[in-house]
Amino acid sequence: MAIHYMTAGDSHGPGLLGILEGIPSGLALSEEMLLPQLMRRQQGYGSGGRMKIEKDRARIMAGVYDGLTTGAPIGLLIENLDFANWQEHQPPLYTVPRPGHADLAGAVKYGLSHTRPISERASARETAMRVAVGTVARLLLEAGGINIYSRVVQIGGVRAAGRPAEELLNEEEMKEIHERCEESEVRCADAASEAQMLAAIDRARESGDSLGGSVELFAYKIPIGLGTHVSRDRKLDTRLAAALMSIPAVKAVEIGIGADVGMRPGSEVHDQVDPQQAARGGRLTNRAGGIEGGMTNGMPVWLRAHFKPVATLQKTLNSVDLQSGEARRARYQRSDVCIVPRGSSVLEAELAIVLADALLDMFGQDRLDQTLERLAAHRARSIVEHTGHA
Amino acid sequence: MAIHYMTAGDSHGPGLLGILEGIPSGLALSEEMLLPQLMRRQQGYGSGGRMKIEKDRARIMAGVYDGLTTGAPIGLLIENLDFANWQEHQPPLYTVPRPGHADLAGAVKYGLSHTRPISERASARETAMRVAVGTVARLLLEAGGINIYSRVVQIGGVRAAGRPAEELLNEEEMKEIHERCEESEVRCADAASEAQMLAAIDRARESGDSLGGSVELFAYKIPIGLGTHVSRDRKLDTRLAAALMSIPAVKAVEIGIGADVGMRPGSEVHDQVDPQQAARGGRLTNRAGGIEGGMTNGMPVWLRAHFKPVATLQKTLNSVDLQSGEARRARYQRSDVCIVPRGSSVLEAELAIVLADALLDMFGQDRLDQTLERLAAHRARSIVEHTGHA
Amino acid sequence: MAIHYMTAGDSHGPGLLGILEGIPSGLALSEEMLLPQLMRRQQGYGSGGRMKIEKDRARIMAGVYDGLTTGAPIGLLIENLDFANWQEHQPPLYTVPRPGHADLAGAVKYGLSHTRPISERASARETAMRVAVGTVARLLLEAGGINIYSRVVQIGGVRAAGRPAEELLNEEEMKEIHERCEESEVRCADAASEAQMLAAIDRARESGDSLGGSVELFAYKIPIGLGTHVSRDRKLDTRLAAALMSIPAVKAVEIGIGADVGMRPGSEVHDQVDPQQAARGGRLTNRAGGIEGGMTNGMPVWLRAHFKPVATLQKTLNSVDLQSGEARRARYQRSDVCIVPRGSSVLEAELAIVLADALLDMFGQDRLDQTLERLAAHRARSIVEHTGHA
Amino acid sequence: MAIHYMTAGDSHGPGLLGILEGIPSGLALSEEMLLPQLMRRQQGYGSGGRMKIEKDRARIMAGVYDGLTTGAPIGLLIENLDFANWQEHQPPLYTVPRPGHADLAGAVKYGLSHTRPISERASARETAMRVAVGTVARLLLEAGGINIYSRVVQIGGVRAAGRPAEELLNEEEMKEIHERCEESEVRCADAASEAQMLAAIDRARESGDSLGGSVELFAYKIPIGLGTHVSRDRKLDTRLAAALMSIPAVKAVEIGIGADVGMRPGSEVHDQVDPQQAARGGRLTNRAGGIEGGMTNGMPVWLRAHFKPVATLQKTLNSVDLQSGEARRARYQRSDVCIVPRGSSVLEAELAIVLADALLDMFGQDRLDQTLERLAAHRARSIVEHTGHA
Repeated sequence: MAIHYMTAGDSHGPGLLGILEGIPSGLALSEEMLLPQLMRRQQGYGSGGRMKIEKDRARIMAGVYDGLTTGAPIGLLIENLDFANWQEHQPPLYTVPRPGHADLAGAVKYGLSHTRPISERASARETAMRVAVGTVARLLLEAGGINIYSRVVQIGGVRAAGRPAEELLNEEEMKEIHERCEESEVRCADAASEAQMLAAIDRARESGDSLGGSVELFAYKIPIGLGTHVSRDRKLDTRLAAALMSIPAVKAVEIGIGADVGMRPGSEVHDQVDPQQAARGGRLTNRAGGIEGGMTNGMPVWLRAHFKPVATLQKTLNSVDLQSGEARRARYQRSDVCIVPRGSSVLEAELAIVLADALLDMFGQDRLDQTLERLAAHRARSIVEHTGHA
Repeated sequence: MAIHYMTAGDSHGPGLLGILEGIPSGLALSEEMLLPQLMRRQQGYGSGGRMKIEKDRARIMAGVYDGLTTGAPIGLLIENLDFANWQEHQPPLYTVPRPGHADLAGAVKYGLSHTRPISERASARETAMRVAVGTVARLLLEAGGINIYSRVVQIGGVRAAGRPAEELLNEEEMKEIHERCEESEVRCADAASEAQMLAAIDRARESGDSLGGSVELFAYKIPIGLGTHVSRDRKLDTRLAAALMSIPAVKAVEIGIGADVGMRPGSEVHDQVDPQQAARGGRLTNRAGGIEGGMTNGMPVWLRAHFKPVATLQKTLNSVDLQSGEARRARYQRSDVCIVPRGSSVLEAELAIVLADALLDMFGQDRLDQTLERLAAHRARSIVEHTGHA
Repeated sequence: MAIHYMTAGDSHGPGLLGILEGIPSGLALSEEMLLPQLMRRQQGYGSGGRMKIEKDRARIMAGVYDGLTTGAPIGLLIENLDFANWQEHQPPLYTVPRPGHADLAGAVKYGLSHTRPISERASARETAMRVAVGTVARLLLEAGGINIYSRVVQIGGVRAAGRPAEELLNEEEMKEIHERCEESEVRCADAASEAQMLAAIDRARESGDSLGGSVELFAYKIPIGLGTHVSRDRKLDTRLAAALMSIPAVKAVEIGIGADVGMRPGSEVHDQVDPQQAARGGRLTNRAGGIEGGMTNGMPVWLRAHFKPVATLQKTLNSVDLQSGEARRARYQRSDVCIVPRGSSVLEAELAIVLADALLDMFGQDRLDQTLERLAAHRARSIVEHTGHA
Repeated sequence: MAIHYMTAGDSHGPGLLGILEGIPSGLALSEEMLLPQLMRRQQGYGSGGRMKIEKDRARIMAGVYDGLTTGAPIGLLIENLDFANWQEHQPPLYTVPRPGHADLAGAVKYGLSHTRPISERASARETAMRVAVGTVARLLLEAGGINIYSRVVQIGGVRAAGRPAEELLNEEEMKEIHERCEESEVRCADAASEAQMLAAIDRARESGDSLGGSVELFAYKIPIGLGTHVSRDRKLDTRLAAALMSIPAVKAVEIGIGADVGMRPGSEVHDQVDPQQAARGGRLTNRAGGIEGGMTNGMPVWLRAHFKPVATLQKTLNSVDLQSGEARRARYQRSDVCIVPRGSSVLEAELAIVLADALLDMFGQDRLDQTLERLAAHRARSIVEHTGHA
């Protein structure tokens, strides 16, 4: 697979590092181009104080010359702006793991007498770098005409009204929904649902609780054939599920109608083909989420991911003291009540990485001009030309 | 990661090959030990004729000496018993892709004028080898006291009655449920639900349609710390999601209560700790499915996967002829109506592979006796000993 | 990277399995096409009796339909024809490891009381499957006009006379040398050197000893840019060194003039450019072996690998009994005196795999027609066109 | 495999990033501990001016808490101290590739009209990060009692007098040699040879030329069984060859006596076993370099690597102008005459990474205390205990 990336970085360390390997030469890239997505990740109703303080900025340390990628690994650095402060005012050491968090298992696995080294890494802070890396992938996709969107469809049990994703075949319609979401503090396009979500978050905050929710992701103008059916690891479904489930707090991933797939008979699940449009997707419906047999089928790709509520609650939960083995209640640190709106940008980032990876697998990862030329040639072919009969 | 495997094999070719690398020396392994799982995969109401004919048997071609694994790659071969017949009576070449299948995207990607080379590989037949490979992993887990179970919880919209998975903390109770499932043609433990599922399958068959459904998977006696929180690729959630979603027809994967995670407040999602039992899981509930922060937390691991209905329907769907570009209806080949019951064994196989992989990561992959000794020592420690204070 | 392969198989087991993933659709492939290379591996002066008995044939189990690859994993099976005999007449269990062999370290690592399970896998037998897999890669390269050659340049201290590899810029000349090698029992193109090599092997056999030697490998018509300079793992040198050193008994790998590189000043090492021919290699010399900065530079790729003498000698060596810890001499089993001539075909196979992998990375791995079209377009460009100034 | 690392960074960019994943918790690590190796890389006769100016310092950005590793990815940053200057005084853009450098192939592959983006990455500068990463691995090995040494054995054809590596069985003797090397500007232990090497470098400088050479690497107290014979990718030879050949300018890698292996009969190549010492290596000689069948055999590991002369010569070579296609001579930029002495530290770094990786594969990568405990238990066993007969 064409793209590889790694991140390093602890929540209260000097900063986050990211290295992204496999991007072709010739992609326009600047720190300014990374900012909008990093900013989106820092917004959203239900976020705690920390987000308001920091303004994340990813510094491009490598892989770009004169505004264009060179093919070399792209090195990114997001400094933690409060690091100097933290050096003087270290957070206390907690010895009571929070239920729902990596604290307990991590302390056992790594043999630690307090949870700090675990919570430094198992932290949503790391997702800032995922967004930076994903934005590079996203810019690559956009150069190929592929755009990514998302919307929050549920928070704390409040479902957003609106057209179901399987009917959103038209990118223009999606763009409008996305734009309305961007203006909403909970990234919900429907005003009435938005109000209910805001109220639910307020209630949770008041009762010292936290909320999770669900997000839908979309990508349009996808060529036929990203991924493959031939092997477990290269199937696009495999890669998408891995990428989304790797995000902290995600506990479920659905492709297309997902879990609903068993509730309808096959004749109402499989998307019939419109022969006129077959080379450009050409389905009358899109329950498959644009993926059949491990490959894109030319229809919009869409998925759903579900976030659990954050594990740090004011209403503390029963736990154990690692040093004494005695019963203790988990301590509260100031935290978000609901990360679902902000989580959207992390999901979009991971989706962009998987799609860009599969695109480069198919069309080459040396030079962007060549990649795009090959993509355009692929798109211009009819089904009959693809299969060798023209 | 300790284990790697690959499969090769086409639906109507001479056979399926599997190579599994990374299993330690000293695991008892014979062809007979692989049979029960292969047989389970071949049973289930709603299966077509083919299953009745073939009796899959995996031949161990390599990696076992004198009944024990040697540490070398395990080579497996499942011959297609009807291959000789097929050589004479080749199935016809289809040029009309089935909606819901890899046919169309595959033919475009690989430049083929008919779908046969695609459907040969994008076939449930390949899962026979996954089951064989997964059974090796399962035997390894069983040597460490870890057992895997499953149950069908929904078919075609019919939900099984029964205790929710999050309450099934006791392995004995699970074992009973699993045994009842084994006696059910739809792998459902509740007799009334079973009858409804059977009826739904019959109705679907009569109307020329197909059905999907949902399966729950369980593993007990899991040590704390399989997987890790530190990196995207090594998180256990990532690996589980990838493994389950890689199975043909799976469209959604949930860990623990999964998609429900956003429907409840944090205080009713996170599993509080019973300090007495903390080193052995020690949670009063198990909504997390035994996984927190990318690691096992000592509680039973449980997941849910959702299968779409099979794509080959008697009630044919609109499609396109690859050679002419004209509208055509997809042709019917005899097929299963519902693969959910049989799919359970494939899901169990992939779960076993991921857990065995993570177990070997943690306790070594050279010699099984050593692996198990290290596992036992890990299990014997209290939380306080783990974290260095004893 | 585009290609992955695994092998399984033990020396006296039922057979060898190979799975090769990543070959595009549309490559003509048949069992007959694999035979010549498998036969080459079974020939050569200094080989023991076993080679004469078996006629290796690789059965294509998967990945080919109607004589063409489908893009699916290619499954290969080489049966051990004497397996039935071995079942009745098992070789004895050795408890005294042979110096120079994996026996001792393997028995310690895997906790075994005799060496059989180690020697079953750490056996030259496994290389038969590497040759089969490599031949698929080779056929792919040949479809792109890229041919692979080799010659033995030293056996047991006897160096072959002939033009140095760095001067063999012309493929026609190489072809002649290779053909002469094919007619020589030691794969040496020079008759006088050949006679000396044969005599050296005879002397070694008589004194109960064994011999190693050196082989040079060549590939012509290589496009500029296979591999990359940007990352450690994707550099072509890295991949070539890994592939060749992974072959049993290889203890040194040189790219181009290799170890000699430090014996000459830079002005006599670096290959000056002929501007007229720059887009097609265009160097006046080829000490670099066609690789600069981790990439092919358009000149022939050439390498040298060195085989140690086989570890099974009639003249037995001091060792230890694994079960008693007492001094014992390693037992003799009938074996080859010199595997260097046969080793050539294994080296060629691994070279082919690396080059095909890098070729597919660059030109796509979906459909061979497209891969070759892109390769042709790349070759047709001048330097100035490549760099964007035409 | 347990360890993964990536680097990013351009020669004249703001700095180098490194991310190292897989190091267990509990290793003492500080920036001071990385300094000595970084300093060694910056010294050596024959180095150009740049080395004198910069004092590399790796900043630990992640993965360490309170002086100990946490198990999380270790993030490293080496700032380029002259970056501010370079921003104002950019080096000119070269359009004439240097023979022997990645320039030409890189410009063609990535479609660039000048070589700057290639030479920024295909630069020895990147090796500073390899040394930083390798030092972490080295500290881990040292915690297990495993030390790494090296010596320069040849520069520009001048071979160092001294005992052959195959006889250096005693670590104390090696330590003395290494220490003498550390005091030599060419890292040569023999004073007379050193003088000749210095003279050779002076002559090369005067004639506007450059020199390569050879280095031997050593590691002592290696447990039996690092690596494995079972698979191509996990063999230790494969990993060592890949790691060393991945270093810029390395063109040949030998394990043990390497290329000499074919010059002696088997009875003088294979290392006979002293049964008394069998569990701790116990060979009377060490031509194998401590590796048999893809695994360590308990003897010191030793290898040889060969560096080509640097490609930037004052005596310019014939080349081509990328923008006009006309003949031009490569331009000279101030550069080292001979990087062999400094190259030693890079080789040692890569050796450390491979050995630490294999050590963690075998003894676990969660907590260092556990890893070392398992290592100690392994070392304490006799051969007979290892193989199950005690």
